[in-house]
Amino acid sequence: MRLRLTPREDSFYDMFADSANNLVTAARLLVELISDGADREAIAEKMRACEHAGDECTHAIMHRLNETFITPFDREDIYRLASRIDDVMDEMEEAADLVVLYKIEQLPKEIVQQVEILERAAELTAEAMPRLRSMKELNEYWIEINRLENQGDQVYRRLLAQLFGGGYDALMVMKLKEVIDRLEEAADAFEQVANTIETIAVKES
Amino acid sequence: MRLRLTPREDSFYDMFADSANNLVTAARLLVELISDGADREAIAEKMRACEHAGDECTHAIMHRLNETFITPFDREDIYRLASRIDDVMDEMEEAADLVVLYKIEQLPKEIVQQVEILERAAELTAEAMPRLRSMKELNEYWIEINRLENQGDQVYRRLLAQLFGGGYDALMVMKLKEVIDRLEEAADAFEQVANTIETIAVKES
Amino acid sequence: MRLRLTPREDSFYDMFADSANNLVTAARLLVELISDGADREAIAEKMRACEHAGDECTHAIMHRLNETFITPFDREDIYRLASRIDDVMDEMEEAADLVVLYKIEQLPKEIVQQVEILERAAELTAEAMPRLRSMKELNEYWIEINRLENQGDQVYRRLLAQLFGGGYDALMVMKLKEVIDRLEEAADAFEQVANTIETIAVKES
Repeated sequence: MRLRLTPREDSFYDMFADSANNLVTAARLLVELISDGADREAIAEKMRACEHAGDECTHAIMHRLNETFITPFDREDIYRLASRIDDVMDEMEEAADLVVLYKIEQLPKEIVQQVEILERAAELTAEAMPRLRSMKELNEYWIEINRLENQGDQVYRRLLAQLFGGGYDALMVMKLKEVIDRLEEAADAFEQVANTIETIAVKES
Repeated sequence: MRLRLTPREDSFYDMFADSANNLVTAARLLVELISDGADREAIAEKMRACEHAGDECTHAIMHRLNETFITPFDREDIYRLASRIDDVMDEMEEAADLVVLYKIEQLPKEIVQQVEILERAAELTAEAMPRLRSMKELNEYWIEINRLENQGDQVYRRLLAQLFGGGYDALMVMKLKEVIDRLEEAADAFEQVANTIETIAVKES
Repeated sequence: MRLRLTPREDSFYDMFADSANNLVTAARLLVELISDGADREAIAEKMRACEHAGDECTHAIMHRLNETFITPFDREDIYRLASRIDDVMDEMEEAADLVVLYKIEQLPKEIVQQVEILERAAELTAEAMPRLRSMKELNEYWIEINRLENQGDQVYRRLLAQLFGGGYDALMVMKLKEVIDRLEEAADAFEQVANTIETIAVKES
């Protein structure tokens, strides 16, 4: 058995990896949700379970934080990173819930692009987490998340133009806008996660 | 006369208590505002006075911060906590103002649940402030605020489903949505106050 | 040639000044955009160029931050200030883009007041940047930005009352509201810049 000097530190990296993997699961549920013929109520239910799992990851991180003396990086940054990951999950869960709540039958085709961007952002975030240990090779992650966020912004604006283009009645515009707004906020929230990691790296540099 | 080692420190706790008590006053004005037969213009006016009182609390804290050398916890956290309390007040004041501004006659019945959650959150926040001194027994406060925020989220979503359910014309949906959005943001802002206190406690632990 | 002890520090001040001057350019483009007979597509295009220039300022600051050992104030505050300035630009650029995207012919007259407040806030912010060196005479800047933000809030609420007053159809209300919401958020974002500078000054005091 090999002794490790800071056994506690490692668990934070593992917990953040769990948290980020949970975002991948949620993003894939969104992809399912918007597919033709999907059982949306069932998927929204799975999404809620996914959000609960996320809450438990967050609480586990906070609990560990309270009982750990030496942390791998600033306590408040651990706290902030956990909160930002939680924000992403909240936006994705709310988007799924609103689709069911508003009984929206037909979603605009282009929404699939928004959701695929979230799926890619989730995968990139999950892949970046293990690199927190070394604080190396995080640059390409930030750059790619920023690129995705810009791309998502373009898709979002095209969707808005389409919504307001005259094909929908006012109430349906409002309902659909709520959903695509949440998806856009999820993309922004992924950028906030990346920004938080950038701040941590700036401090450690 | 008993000498106190850190006379200055205490005043921050008192000022935060004042600030939080002011939120209780504002939440109770919201309860009044949505009651049948309320004089809404008069109540919105009282709410504006309450917001001004809040601004003065905030400025008093900032002023004291600038002239105090040793603070009970990090300067920037004092600053942040004061700002977060201010955010709650702003959302509540805006909700009241919009009801009057949009000349909304009939509010949905369930809005009373949203407002009662804010009243409870304000009371909990005011009760937690004196416990900042010892940083003890704050756990139940966070847990309860989080529970309230989740409950508020459920009420909010039911209100949305009702709004979009077909009983209102599009313009009224927009007006009512603005109001319940502000109330929901006030609930979120209470959670942000609790999160800020949690961050402070994490640092001090 | 005079030797300077901390040559690197100065460049941050210059870069923040560039960043803030860029906001002045953007605010003036907004003034142009809402003028009668403006070539809106051309102006929205210039706005995009302005936003790109802003992104380059931000990246230059981040890059310098990574290669500088001693910074004039906390690394994370430099990071935060750059991000907040970036937020203002994003809101202004989005407002301009939405006017074109939604093909809005007629804007409400009062929107000029909102935009003039942004122009004044941008000028004040640009004038405050050189005073970061001494951290002196920043008080009047905060006070004035706060006053402007309050004034903007009044204008915003009057615009809302007008929008919902019955003269527009529901879809046009939504489109116009998106635009004035972005302008209001730009005003709030200017206040966030001022708050960030206040936090820095609090720390340094």
